[in-house]
Amino acid sequence: MDFNQQLKHKIEIIDKNLDNMLPPADTYPPVIHEAMRYSVFSGGKRLRPVLLISAYELFDEHVDDCMPLACAIEFIHTYSLIHDDLPAMDDDDTRRGKATCHKVFGEGIAVLTGDALLNHAFEVMLDDIARNPHHIAAAIAIAKAAGIGGMIGGQVMDLLYENKPVDDGVLQYIHQHKTAALICAAVKAGALAAGADEVYVRAIEQYGLALGMAFQISDDILDVDEGGKEEVKATYPALYGIEASIKAAQEFTQHAIDAIAVFGQKGTFLKEMASYMMRRSN
Amino acid sequence: MDFNQQLKHKIEIIDKNLDNMLPPADTYPPVIHEAMRYSVFSGGKRLRPVLLISAYELFDEHVDDCMPLACAIEFIHTYSLIHDDLPAMDDDDTRRGKATCHKVFGEGIAVLTGDALLNHAFEVMLDDIARNPHHIAAAIAIAKAAGIGGMIGGQVMDLLYENKPVDDGVLQYIHQHKTAALICAAVKAGALAAGADEVYVRAIEQYGLALGMAFQISDDILDVDEGGKEEVKATYPALYGIEASIKAAQEFTQHAIDAIAVFGQKGTFLKEMASYMMRRSN
Repeated sequence: MDFNQQLKHKIEIIDKNLDNMLPPADTYPPVIHEAMRYSVFSGGKRLRPVLLISAYELFDEHVDDCMPLACAIEFIHTYSLIHDDLPAMDDDDTRRGKATCHKVFGEGIAVLTGDALLNHAFEVMLDDIARNPHHIAAAIAIAKAAGIGGMIGGQVMDLLYENKPVDDGVLQYIHQHKTAALICAAVKAGALAAGADEVYVRAIEQYGLALGMAFQISDDILDVDEGGKEEVKATYPALYGIEASIKAAQEFTQHAIDAIAVFGQKGTFLKEMASYMMRRSN
Repeated sequence: MDFNQQLKHKIEIIDKNLDNMLPPADTYPPVIHEAMRYSVFSGGKRLRPVLLISAYELFDEHVDDCMPLACAIEFIHTYSLIHDDLPAMDDDDTRRGKATCHKVFGEGIAVLTGDALLNHAFEVMLDDIARNPHHIAAAIAIAKAAGIGGMIGGQVMDLLYENKPVDDGVLQYIHQHKTAALICAAVKAGALAAGADEVYVRAIEQYGLALGMAFQISDDILDVDEGGKEEVKATYPALYGIEASIKAAQEFTQHAIDAIAVFGQKGTFLKEMASYMMRRSN
């Protein structure tokens, strides 16, 4: 299988697991389960779960065992988008060409849908730990990356600096926390759940951080190309211009690829993921 | 020590632990840590953590061991109030005589502060499980009670039936899920963490559910007495009148007390908590 076929195959398995790990759409009470599924199945590219299971596969072929962790990280990513799109935050009416959760279900239900998905992610992980106690380190890595020392910290700074000029320090903080932390946690959790040696976990972590930075920069470049919002935003293109941003994204991508040279042939898929993510957004 | 002294003593220990388990107020990034502390330390009566450690004490005297679980449940309760107060939900400007989180810090930060506290609750519980793997069942009980099959489910129904008449079935669903589930999880988690036998866990669970119902009804009665909001709300007083509501609260309280008769003298504090909670709100 070539890269695209492998990726497609992984996404299919993930989608099936996401479906199984959510209560059915007609579960009582009404609306919220529909809303959870609407947001989870609205065209996400499953980058984080793909990264998690691909890192896991470097060390253990029984990829089914890491599916709860992979789905949990996608639930967390989805909740963060729902809350980020709220009028009080980014105030977005559409995402990936579809109406955002609060536009379809109302703001109150959107707040609760985000809460529900975040809580559900931890329900899934705790059930998983009850069966696989050695997954605790992976769950902790995901929890920390999602929290105030990770993604939420980045979102706070993003919100505080909305329409305000940022310096390089703030920009790096936002990118590292808002985006790179959870992407890094995906591969780190995969390696940890598979029981990888510390030296390999560190290599994977380097890969994840560089990949996360490259991805955020590429995403911002794409946003400019597509004539995205005009507000002053904490982005590489806004601060350094397009050309320097493209160069930075390429450098981070190369750094990511170099970081997993240690895995040789086995690391091919993750290397190709790095190139793929630089070409795609969100 | 009489009941009030015991309660005060427990609350002091809980407040100290809540303080220790939150990052300092001046942690980077600014504002969010201030907002988390503002909401956690805004006059909450710590009913859920008090219940958790009191149930734990029935079976194990080393109450320090259950402090992470006790604090986690208070973080979850606090996050739920912050989101519940948002304009898109109950739209409350004050709580316990203080401005609500979104009135002080803005709506965007309030959404993120709730998210941060929910995530932090699970960070604290996962760190605890890493040290005490046998706490996993307690953490799962809390997670389920907080989630879509518990508190969030109740909030969804509360929101859907805002300003609409409810029947008894919907009212019971809302009370059991929105309020009783987390109160029940508090005592159940305490018993589970202390390794209580199943028959005792069941007794405690009966106590918690009845207590939660009594508490919600008492709270609604108090709200009427104080001339609370006039909207049609899913409450016992609105559906059955004050007198029948007082009787129902008393019956649930008695049911709670009866459920823990099996613990004899040791259960005195929890019995007194039931009477105390019927006299207090929120």
